[in-house]
Amino acid sequence: MNTHDLIRELRDSNGTKIVLLVADGLGGLPVPPNPGTELETASTPNLDACASEGTCGLSTPVLPGITPGSGPGHLGLFGYDPLEYRIGRGILEALGINFPVTSKDVCIRGNFCTLGADGTITDRRAGRPTTERCKEIVAKLRTIKVPGAEVFVEPVKEHRFVLVFRADGLGDRVNDTDPQATGALRLMAVGEDEPSWKTAAVVNEFVAKSNDVLKGEAPANGLTLRGFAKMPTIATMQDVYGLKSAAVAVYPMYKGLARLVGMDILDAGDTLQTKVARLKAAWNDYDFFFLHYKYTDSTGEDGNFAAKVKKIEELDAAIPGIRALKPDVLIVTGDHSTPSKMKAHSFHPVPTLIVSDLCRPDGADGFSERACRTGGLGQFAAKHLMLLAMAHAGRLGKYGA
Amino acid sequence: MNTHDLIRELRDSNGTKIVLLVADGLGGLPVPPNPGTELETASTPNLDACASEGTCGLSTPVLPGITPGSGPGHLGLFGYDPLEYRIGRGILEALGINFPVTSKDVCIRGNFCTLGADGTITDRRAGRPTTERCKEIVAKLRTIKVPGAEVFVEPVKEHRFVLVFRADGLGDRVNDTDPQATGALRLMAVGEDEPSWKTAAVVNEFVAKSNDVLKGEAPANGLTLRGFAKMPTIATMQDVYGLKSAAVAVYPMYKGLARLVGMDILDAGDTLQTKVARLKAAWNDYDFFFLHYKYTDSTGEDGNFAAKVKKIEELDAAIPGIRALKPDVLIVTGDHSTPSKMKAHSFHPVPTLIVSDLCRPDGADGFSERACRTGGLGQFAAKHLMLLAMAHAGRLGKYGA
Repeated sequence: MNTHDLIRELRDSNGTKIVLLVADGLGGLPVPPNPGTELETASTPNLDACASEGTCGLSTPVLPGITPGSGPGHLGLFGYDPLEYRIGRGILEALGINFPVTSKDVCIRGNFCTLGADGTITDRRAGRPTTERCKEIVAKLRTIKVPGAEVFVEPVKEHRFVLVFRADGLGDRVNDTDPQATGALRLMAVGEDEPSWKTAAVVNEFVAKSNDVLKGEAPANGLTLRGFAKMPTIATMQDVYGLKSAAVAVYPMYKGLARLVGMDILDAGDTLQTKVARLKAAWNDYDFFFLHYKYTDSTGEDGNFAAKVKKIEELDAAIPGIRALKPDVLIVTGDHSTPSKMKAHSFHPVPTLIVSDLCRPDGADGFSERACRTGGLGQFAAKHLMLLAMAHAGRLGKYGA
Repeated sequence: MNTHDLIRELRDSNGTKIVLLVADGLGGLPVPPNPGTELETASTPNLDACASEGTCGLSTPVLPGITPGSGPGHLGLFGYDPLEYRIGRGILEALGINFPVTSKDVCIRGNFCTLGADGTITDRRAGRPTTERCKEIVAKLRTIKVPGAEVFVEPVKEHRFVLVFRADGLGDRVNDTDPQATGALRLMAVGEDEPSWKTAAVVNEFVAKSNDVLKGEAPANGLTLRGFAKMPTIATMQDVYGLKSAAVAVYPMYKGLARLVGMDILDAGDTLQTKVARLKAAWNDYDFFFLHYKYTDSTGEDGNFAAKVKKIEELDAAIPGIRALKPDVLIVTGDHSTPSKMKAHSFHPVPTLIVSDLCRPDGADGFSERACRTGGLGQFAAKHLMLLAMAHAGRLGKYGA
């Protein structure tokens, strides 16, 4: 039986509130001379108290050994099997900037780049233009028309923009035009099936015209495209869990992921304090809150062990504010590990804790990979976390008589 | 999404080397007065060092409670779901003696047996003839012709031989003729479907003729047949993982299993020293090495706790020679447990360790069932071990954006 159908059958509305706090890339590895991971090294009295009151475990985002991107990592946490639901980067970017995506759209992530006289890429990020400059160049691209599809160009940030083609019957099985290297020519778009041939044709025409439009705009005199994607069909959190859900996130991709599963996006400042304040303000309006904290991942990606430790400690300081709202269930986890040792996402399982009145104590004496290893949740698939959340909120009835 | 397709999509070639050391039947049980299992009783300083540097866990070969044969046990370790891929014993035996199996062949494991005057079996192994004698009797069987199929008879060892019928349209859904008991008559071969009726007919004719041919050859005056099997279609390790793979194994079945998934078979003497020397000699030629060590299983099957302890200690002594080659990933595990207490394969999960630079330490202070139980790999399905091997070798890219 499909897990979502099972939840629909068993779910109950009881007014309880669930907070899912995702510290992006939370899991880590020791870097000598530190004997422990970033989380084990950080001083986290508030998270430690949660762990000793609650139940801990290690979550596997996709499968053992599989390193997830942010999309699959979050979909798993929201209870959508990341091997079943594959979300293209273009869709995530478009959702993240509030673009009103329709079922006719193919969304694409665009980067401005610098092209040399011979047409090869000399800078894949066009010298990182300001976001203001990005908007100016996007305005020029908006003058381009191509036969067979409506075109939308939207600025994102610095060298990044979103490109959307809208027409009946466009496919999204099109290769990236970004060769992922400098010194290389850009790739032609090629479709893998008939609907995607049509997309590739309009894409190639658009790129050809962009060469003229951007000619005098160096260092942003070219563009590369990747992550061609149509909107997937995906049931909302309301539909699956009966949870009115909201996201407090800052970065576009995480807003996009939340919107994809039907969450409302609550604007909040960039600090943990403003986020917690926003959570408090919306407390009575929702059943489920997804809070995203980016900096545990970005410091890990930077390879900065000490900075990641510090960001974990800042997160810890925000916990009392969240607990003061008395959520029936508080979950703290990550969408994947980002060990600063690896400067990248990794496959290592992710420390996770649940605090609720229904927790079975497991003797965890703190929040750490170590304590989670022997915690009461064991090692579990991230896609099952929402089942545990619902259960600990008393929102799942009995299966069978 | 199919796991092998996922691996094909994510895999990377980076020149790293993986060694999979399989101590057959490694897991055990305590036998009083020993408080620990065979592995816990053995003195294993080198394996203990691996465990404390690496990450440990318990692998479940098929499903909790399921005792695997060697075929499913090894297929799981190689990353082929043993419930999806079922490999008949006959195929394993034929591959193990280098018989050039074709898609038209039904392969069968044969045993010589002793038949009494009333046709019942008095010795299921015909008094264990020498391998020389086995070859002589096989030569006699080769004179038998049956209409409708080509027949091949190949000696294996002592009372064992391989029988192959080759023809278009032969099925392999045929029962064993071995009643698995002395004092019993042999069973007629019966096919479960039309292609297998054809096989059963040639088998029964062959057995009838063998009665005449072997009449004067007591104690090897009869034969039993089991494990009717055709060659399955199975992707190679190269195809799935992009790993050029080699096996260092002595016993036919393990060579056969390795050949089935496309490994090259490296001949090596029967001692651990000669095996490690062979590994060293081939080090630059392969990405992946499967080393098979039989004696942890055979001593377990003998019910000899002390001997199994000793064989584990001999294995431990070989570890420094393997580590001296500096594999990027070294895995030590078993294909199943063979507790000497049970004198048989068992369903108990199997102690497993991984050593690599990307291991998350888990506080394991030695290699034992006990330490593996709280190890960082948790309890995992053996079919996921190769995902972990690939990940720890840095050979799997990120899934999704």
